Amino acid sequence: MTSPTSTSTPTSTSTSTPGSTSPGAGRHPGQDGAALEVDSVVTRAQRAFDTLSLLEPGVVAAALDAAAAALGADAEELVALAASETGLTIPRLTGELRRTRVQLGLFARTVERGDHLDVRIDDPDPDFALGVPRDDLRRLLVPVGPVVVFAAGNFPFAFSVAGGDTAAALAAGCTVVVKAHPGHPQLSRRVTELVATALEGAGLPQGTLQLVEGQDAGVAALRHPGIRAASFTGSLRAGRLLADLAATRPDPIPFFGELGSVNPVLVTAAGLEATRSGLPTGFVTSVSGSAGQLCTKPGFLLVPDDAALDEPIANAAAAVHEHRLLSPGIADGYEARRDAILGVDGVRTIHEGGVRRDDDEQAWATPTIVGVPLDVLQVQRDTLLDEAFGPLSIVVDYPRDTDLSAVVTELFPGNLTSTLHAGPGETGAEVGRLVRTMARTSGRVLLRGWPTGVAVTPAMQHGGPWPATTTDATSVGTAAIGRFLRGVAFQGAPQDLLPPAVRDANPWSVARSVSAAGESADW
Amino acid sequence: MTSPTSTSTPTSTSTSTPGSTSPGAGRHPGQDGAALEVDSVVTRAQRAFDTLSLLEPGVVAAALDAAAAALGADAEELVALAASETGLTIPRLTGELRRTRVQLGLFARTVERGDHLDVRIDDPDPDFALGVPRDDLRRLLVPVGPVVVFAAGNFPFAFSVAGGDTAAALAAGCTVVVKAHPGHPQLSRRVTELVATALEGAGLPQGTLQLVEGQDAGVAALRHPGIRAASFTGSLRAGRLLADLAATRPDPIPFFGELGSVNPVLVTAAGLEATRSGLPTGFVTSVSGSAGQLCTKPGFLLVPDDAALDEPIANAAAAVHEHRLLSPGIADGYEARRDAILGVDGVRTIHEGGVRRDDDEQAWATPTIVGVPLDVLQVQRDTLLDEAFGPLSIVVDYPRDTDLSAVVTELFPGNLTSTLHAGPGETGAEVGRLVRTMARTSGRVLLRGWPTGVAVTPAMQHGGPWPATTTDATSVGTAAIGRFLRGVAFQGAPQDLLPPAVRDANPWSVARSVSAAGESADW
Repeated sequence: MTSPTSTSTPTSTSTSTPGSTSPGAGRHPGQDGAALEVDSVVTRAQRAFDTLSLLEPGVVAAALDAAAAALGADAEELVALAASETGLTIPRLTGELRRTRVQLGLFARTVERGDHLDVRIDDPDPDFALGVPRDDLRRLLVPVGPVVVFAAGNFPFAFSVAGGDTAAALAAGCTVVVKAHPGHPQLSRRVTELVATALEGAGLPQGTLQLVEGQDAGVAALRHPGIRAASFTGSLRAGRLLADLAATRPDPIPFFGELGSVNPVLVTAAGLEATRSGLPTGFVTSVSGSAGQLCTKPGFLLVPDDAALDEPIANAAAAVHEHRLLSPGIADGYEARRDAILGVDGVRTIHEGGVRRDDDEQAWATPTIVGVPLDVLQVQRDTLLDEAFGPLSIVVDYPRDTDLSAVVTELFPGNLTSTLHAGPGETGAEVGRLVRTMARTSGRVLLRGWPTGVAVTPAMQHGGPWPATTTDATSVGTAAIGRFLRGVAFQGAPQDLLPPAVRDANPWSVARSVSAAGESADW
Repeated sequence: MTSPTSTSTPTSTSTSTPGSTSPGAGRHPGQDGAALEVDSVVTRAQRAFDTLSLLEPGVVAAALDAAAAALGADAEELVALAASETGLTIPRLTGELRRTRVQLGLFARTVERGDHLDVRIDDPDPDFALGVPRDDLRRLLVPVGPVVVFAAGNFPFAFSVAGGDTAAALAAGCTVVVKAHPGHPQLSRRVTELVATALEGAGLPQGTLQLVEGQDAGVAALRHPGIRAASFTGSLRAGRLLADLAATRPDPIPFFGELGSVNPVLVTAAGLEATRSGLPTGFVTSVSGSAGQLCTKPGFLLVPDDAALDEPIANAAAAVHEHRLLSPGIADGYEARRDAILGVDGVRTIHEGGVRRDDDEQAWATPTIVGVPLDVLQVQRDTLLDEAFGPLSIVVDYPRDTDLSAVVTELFPGNLTSTLHAGPGETGAEVGRLVRTMARTSGRVLLRGWPTGVAVTPAMQHGGPWPATTTDATSVGTAAIGRFLRGVAFQGAPQDLLPPAVRDANPWSVARSVSAAGESADW
């Protein structure tokens, strides 16, 4: 693991080296070594938490701003390093780093405002409706404690060391142990070093942000009694495994995982008329951006079966340049998934892209778009419905009299996003019912545009029913902070023993909801 | 199961009758039969949800008020029935029913206000900081869907069919399947009938509130794909079992369980001086109320080892009349636990109460209070620290120089409440640290009084670190509604397709937080 604030393990970069520090030379030396080192990391995170949770919001906000500034100061170096490790393009990574800095700033402003503390105060009430006097009661949300963040491979900045989960956890007042994604180890270490130094320079305690590397270290952190919550962005397989580990601890902890989503885009007949000219290009652009390695990539486009879009979609796809995939492993998985889909009876090829290996063993992909009638998809659902992580999407042709709401319920029960392109003024009962079904089966419902490109804002929701996420919590936007908070009520406490946010003087000037005495007569 | 709104199973009162409706005559006919009947119950709950989730807040609020009124109209009959089934006293049950009605009213007012929807609106922003225009984005919290509520045995009104979990779920807009507690089956059926009829009379759909009975039915409901969340109040053993079932579903669902708490009360030397005269009686009253069958009963009282409280505590305990225990099974469990504690080396008896069986096989208990030095408790923690459900408590004598904060961390890491009786003006750094430790290890921190008697208010927190609850969510007070909500964002939607709460016209007049265009320049 890399811990720039530690003097005890100055050069260690991985806890997964078998036997590196194992005392027992047992059957799982790597795991033992990882557990030992992780224990010291988490202990440091616990000590840091004791200090961090006492700091004023202004200090935490300034530290988040300092972290953003540190990333900005070394932007060119970081983007170049990220590009070499991930194959993502310089423009994409430049935008992603900008987004990551803006995100830290958004959370800094959120911390300053203090709305996320949800402060509630019950005034003492001698005539309380329950028949006994009500005592002075003050409730606020407090940080849960040290958390572990499993970084993602496809967003080396925005969902990695200093990404949204880390920003939300720090904003909540939690210390963070990041489990590095193996796809960009050097970048992970460099960002940890930069950000941890910036946070400390701004007055946060040593150990506020630490990095561990290797699967064993991640598992050991997740199981460590000092860790109070976990977040994750990655595959369904790995996410389910980790969610189960979190749930089967002696003391289960919340596990906020984002696991997989196929983001259906539905086009009505009227919607097709309205969007026909832009539809093929918009679709292919959304599918192939970042080589389709996005959790919000539209995996399915549902169109009327007489839409006749194959040719314009094929033309748009043919115009897309090849893009490097994140890693040879991702490429292998993508190829296998693509071959399986192409091999299904009844699937037609609209545009067959390829995967090319270069001399450095990197793989480069061009988009593949296939078509399938709805009834074939229904029969072949076991093969076709799983996410294909890469530049592939499936056009589904549905008969004009199809009940799209029933299709969504049957085939797309859990997604990050659902999109509907309806015609202008097409807002009747049937479309209303469809939109409600989309809202029941996904966290974000779009009525125009494409699901890729997730704004970082107060109103964003990036999380939906299983398997999109393990809970419905969002991992993007300011509401993401709620994952790392818990409620505490103080009853009959003298002012000096109360947290500042619930004191009469309200020194942090946070919004508070007060229940006056006598109010319960209305209940 | 009892479903007053169903015509298909008019007389069925249990799904656990072996083989009652089992088609396959397999090895687990009871379970199969339960699963079949539960399937029809959950299907009804899903249909009802489709309607319920479209209703205006005013309709839901009025229905909650109607439910409260229905309980009030038949209060005497209900209290008498509850007393016969549970052995709790008429005054206690009268107060509990009042609390249950007040609680429904509180949630009705909460629904009307709409703050729980946490409405956030991002205005479209052409100059958004991320470098691409920000689309119109509107987020609100929506009900998760049908939920299952496992009722408690010790609160036949307030944590049962029409109790806090049901009120919170209905207020969220969820339909509810209650798994009846076997300790008060007739009351459960009667309350279901009254409340379901009242809800329907006020315009809520058939199937909004249904009852199932028997362990097999509860498990079947928890595993049913139509159920989207679960709540539970009961033992650590049963709660852990159900939590594991929820977590290991093909699609895990949130499980909000309240499992066990020993609610330590700490008294400093100065606190002892200040409260000495009232301490023994206050303590014994809190321990013995409802025969100690409360989740907030103080299981441990920590006092300086020269406190000399044994005699006054013994006198107070001797004055307590015997109280019927909830059931013979509870009595067996309590006696075994009491005997185990009395048998520990180093435990002294301060007052030995008893358990008497009457001719109806009911058991009646008087309080037992024991004392133990802190060092013995530390050595015998495996035997002594588990909750004793009944009128027993342990006085712990600590040496004057003890670090109480360390003791709480070591012995009391997860509780619903922690209480500190400090001296007036005793607000220095050491006490401050202790209060922070109490806030880290429990959901409610009291600086005076006793933890029993939980106010139902906006600022209440009834939930703390494991094993107090499976998550830190509260099951009492208006914040409890958040357990049954999830976030959905609408992007670029025409007004007609938006839920009313996020439309420009704001027809429900709910509070909304709006991010204006241009704001992101400050992030």
